[in-house]
Amino acid sequence: MSILVNGRSCGCVDVRDRGFQYGDGTFTTLRLRAGKAMLWPWHIGRLADACSRLGIRYPGDEALAADLRRLGSAAVEGVIKIQITRGIGGRGYRPVAEGEPTRVVSLHPAPEFPQDYYRSGVSVRLCRTPLGINSALAGIKHMNRLEQVLGRGEWTDEFQEGLMCDTEGFLVEGTMSNVFMVKSGRLETPLIDRCGVAGVMRRLVLEIARSRGVEVSERRIRPEELAAADEVFLTNCVIGIWPVARLAEKNYPVGALTMMLNRSSEIHQLSEVVAG
Amino acid sequence: MSILVNGRSCGCVDVRDRGFQYGDGTFTTLRLRAGKAMLWPWHIGRLADACSRLGIRYPGDEALAADLRRLGSAAVEGVIKIQITRGIGGRGYRPVAEGEPTRVVSLHPAPEFPQDYYRSGVSVRLCRTPLGINSALAGIKHMNRLEQVLGRGEWTDEFQEGLMCDTEGFLVEGTMSNVFMVKSGRLETPLIDRCGVAGVMRRLVLEIARSRGVEVSERRIRPEELAAADEVFLTNCVIGIWPVARLAEKNYPVGALTMMLNRSSEIHQLSEVVAG
Repeated sequence: MSILVNGRSCGCVDVRDRGFQYGDGTFTTLRLRAGKAMLWPWHIGRLADACSRLGIRYPGDEALAADLRRLGSAAVEGVIKIQITRGIGGRGYRPVAEGEPTRVVSLHPAPEFPQDYYRSGVSVRLCRTPLGINSALAGIKHMNRLEQVLGRGEWTDEFQEGLMCDTEGFLVEGTMSNVFMVKSGRLETPLIDRCGVAGVMRRLVLEIARSRGVEVSERRIRPEELAAADEVFLTNCVIGIWPVARLAEKNYPVGALTMMLNRSSEIHQLSEVVAG
Repeated sequence: MSILVNGRSCGCVDVRDRGFQYGDGTFTTLRLRAGKAMLWPWHIGRLADACSRLGIRYPGDEALAADLRRLGSAAVEGVIKIQITRGIGGRGYRPVAEGEPTRVVSLHPAPEFPQDYYRSGVSVRLCRTPLGINSALAGIKHMNRLEQVLGRGEWTDEFQEGLMCDTEGFLVEGTMSNVFMVKSGRLETPLIDRCGVAGVMRRLVLEIARSRGVEVSERRIRPEELAAADEVFLTNCVIGIWPVARLAEKNYPVGALTMMLNRSSEIHQLSEVVAG
């Protein structure tokens, strides 16, 4: 793994960094394919938006692109994680508006998922750990991830993902993915206005579906509604789209809409920003 | 500032540490006075309990006491912060049960608060940022502190503390303290079963009050109820007890119960564990 901290090759961060003290930062994870960063403009756009909402100074597109070019030249395939924290400073929780942010960009090997996950689908469970509701943080891929850690800690290898509900019992997302269901040709996914992550792949799937004339709905969904779904699938920028084959005693086929999305050229599109 | 990372003098942590990646850890902050750690058994007890709830291996009382002795020998007055994270490892959010935890113990100068804060009280505001409800994390002083950072970011120096409510509008705590009110001689403080931190000083104040025959109640409290309180005060292990002089246009006297607690010998008690 190669790691750049503020552009310098380095494997560690200052203990005083607010990312380590408070989880005071945001991150994104993206695929490097054929040396290019997939959906780069969307990832940096979401980072800039998250920084704006958290009051963290955004380091700028160019600094991140420069880091990406340096790491990308070392690999044509892989996963890039970008973290931006509020850096060092401030008394206690008090954030300093003009503080110098810390950016950490790391390159990881591309994960190799079995082809079966894409062809036949994955096994999914419902987590007991709930997601707290807080619109002040909803949508942001921030570095406070204890709920996801506890959710993922509920099983070992029996499932590929677990779905999480908010404290009012509404379905929100997977521990590391967004979730969609198809019902009578209509594509539905939970609102993420009160908790959850506004996934880049979630956004892309919604755009592709709309561009193909598929009716799309973002709404509050009860987990019980999944039992009546024709298709269920999961998305994130590392896995792409995983059909769900099994959830809570129910089996699903890999349906037509899931297949159409998974085969669409947009899902495999590369960004214009060349790395390396 | 002196910092020990796993017992070694070091100012940085591995980028891959789950404390930095996910805020996957717990912490406590305590006073060093006359070279002794105040309320040491309670602090390490709470750390052990937090580790147990989060599924993090607790490094053991002795490792922490050894760190404390090393740092404590450098100062007779100060603040000690202890962080315990799940360490490095695991795939994504998935926690590894047998993972090696990271412990970070740091010594900071003792803060000097104006005597007026104790004699006349402090000015407090109500924060707009809400606290998400999640009983899976309630009570734990964990390292996911973005809500407190956003709450503290709502003002600069006009107030000494801000009070936070949960997403249902119930009063929970200050950004860095617990809150109490006195009403007709009865001591009341918010329940922390759905969110908030189980403060060590909160626990001590409840014990002292009960031992003095004061009627005590932990319950859901609406912030509007503070307007009818005779006394309001804040607690944490660094500040001790701060009477509230002003909150949302209302002025409070420094009342008899607040003064009794602040003068009690237990508040100033030292631990048996000698540092240095």
